[in-house]
Amino acid sequence: MSVIYRKVALIGLGLIASSMAHAIRRAGAAGTVVGTARSAETRAIAKEMGLVDEVAESAADAVADADLVVLCVPVGAMGAVTEEIAPMLKPGAVVSDVGSVKRAVIADVGPRLPEGVHFVPAHPLAGTEQSGPQSGFAELFDNRWTILVPPEGADRGEVDRLARFWQALGAYTDEMDADHHDLVLAVTSHAPHLIAYTMVGVADDLRRVTDSEVVKYSAAGFRDFTRIAASDPTMWRDVFLTNRDATLEILGRFTEELFALQRAIRTGDGDHLHAYFTRTRAIRRGIVEAGQDTDAPNFGRRP
Amino acid sequence: MSVIYRKVALIGLGLIASSMAHAIRRAGAAGTVVGTARSAETRAIAKEMGLVDEVAESAADAVADADLVVLCVPVGAMGAVTEEIAPMLKPGAVVSDVGSVKRAVIADVGPRLPEGVHFVPAHPLAGTEQSGPQSGFAELFDNRWTILVPPEGADRGEVDRLARFWQALGAYTDEMDADHHDLVLAVTSHAPHLIAYTMVGVADDLRRVTDSEVVKYSAAGFRDFTRIAASDPTMWRDVFLTNRDATLEILGRFTEELFALQRAIRTGDGDHLHAYFTRTRAIRRGIVEAGQDTDAPNFGRRP
Repeated sequence: MSVIYRKVALIGLGLIASSMAHAIRRAGAAGTVVGTARSAETRAIAKEMGLVDEVAESAADAVADADLVVLCVPVGAMGAVTEEIAPMLKPGAVVSDVGSVKRAVIADVGPRLPEGVHFVPAHPLAGTEQSGPQSGFAELFDNRWTILVPPEGADRGEVDRLARFWQALGAYTDEMDADHHDLVLAVTSHAPHLIAYTMVGVADDLRRVTDSEVVKYSAAGFRDFTRIAASDPTMWRDVFLTNRDATLEILGRFTEELFALQRAIRTGDGDHLHAYFTRTRAIRRGIVEAGQDTDAPNFGRRP
Repeated sequence: MSVIYRKVALIGLGLIASSMAHAIRRAGAAGTVVGTARSAETRAIAKEMGLVDEVAESAADAVADADLVVLCVPVGAMGAVTEEIAPMLKPGAVVSDVGSVKRAVIADVGPRLPEGVHFVPAHPLAGTEQSGPQSGFAELFDNRWTILVPPEGADRGEVDRLARFWQALGAYTDEMDADHHDLVLAVTSHAPHLIAYTMVGVADDLRRVTDSEVVKYSAAGFRDFTRIAASDPTMWRDVFLTNRDATLEILGRFTEELFALQRAIRTGDGDHLHAYFTRTRAIRRGIVEAGQDTDAPNFGRRP
């Protein structure tokens, strides 16, 4: 229990910010946590829950006197929020974010920050399909990775302090440049999300199989896709629009490979299919061994 | 606890058969359960576990005097197994199966059965990513659907008896014709599996993102795909080869929709993306309300 920032301001109170609030409290990592959200309803819920020490009426109010400001809004809203808070940031404050895309956020936020404020972008790789201030929990970041993406010339001491803060919240930390981050995430997150959304949409739209059949028989594999495809639409719209190039590159590779497998099905090339399906088991083993997933069947779900 | 078949023979002792063995015992649904597997190692494990009442050395031995014979082998092996057991089946016996594809199984098995034997194909829609005689558990079928696909002219009494048997094992039951079954499964299972295999293969094969990065950062969504892509390669090879037309039809629809979403990303059409991502949430809600998945975040996984 050691305070790393005297006062932390969370801008946006969705899944990530509310989980941060719980994890900060669990770790005693901040003296005070202020939170705010654009929606009055969200602010009211946060207040009633006692989610943070203080709910501010606006982002500008929230950042006054804060030592760390974390932008927890959809990637497409980062620029506008930065405009709003910039005049109120105190000299020496650290501004960070939790956006799933880094190049676009750096381009939107960086130029709008005043001199004398440190900018250390970050991305905690953790989440669930749920959203809103009530969806957070303190363990969300435990044993997950938070990637810091410090711009050139970033203050080393402040980068390290932010890493210690995330470690206090339960995460491992790593550093990467923005382009590589965006490519890695296109593979591990953005392309899989688009693919899951697509498959669920297709199932919903077939005339020859009813929605009620899809729902009843989903346990055959499809339901894992629906979990991913239940993620927040606004957040994901912004991710795809702002990580366009890397996402389209990975989807291009995906489609190429899918066509090769479709051809193998069409021509009856069982050896190709069997070899491909055998190779993919190794990655799963690696993920379980790395502690990034459970090896309980079906993720430990029971009927 | 009421015996529905005096003697049940399970041909193959993988995930489904071993789960059936546990569930039959839990329900007291059979007087005796005989099991067999092609591999001597599997038979030895089953014997040591006491998985079934009797482990037979061959499929032909296993079915002698059995009232219900369930073929629990990969879809591509059904024909050959039927050849082997046909001479040993007793008159009035019921032959069923658990294959994920029904049209091809009916074509392979039906004509090879002797007169006087009832054929009632079935498919329990339940599974995990694990395989082998040790992977089974009694609860696998609880609250899941088993689809019966009786051929024209099937004995109504025997169809109903098999339905009662699956209900005793915990499942709901339904009836469908083979073509519709294969299309429904192409949507809820076969296409999602091929897509998951493809995405995991792409991630494994990228030169610019290392496997170790994919493993570490998989929690961002990708790990759900790896679970599906860890399924048994032989079983899935056979599924795609034998449900070729329906799988390719659904994959064609999927690719069409994926291209439309890719174009929306390329042209920056956020409204299209947002509307699509909002629509897919409803299916998830339906699945949770139907008791086919948990609403705990991340399937209730904790780090």
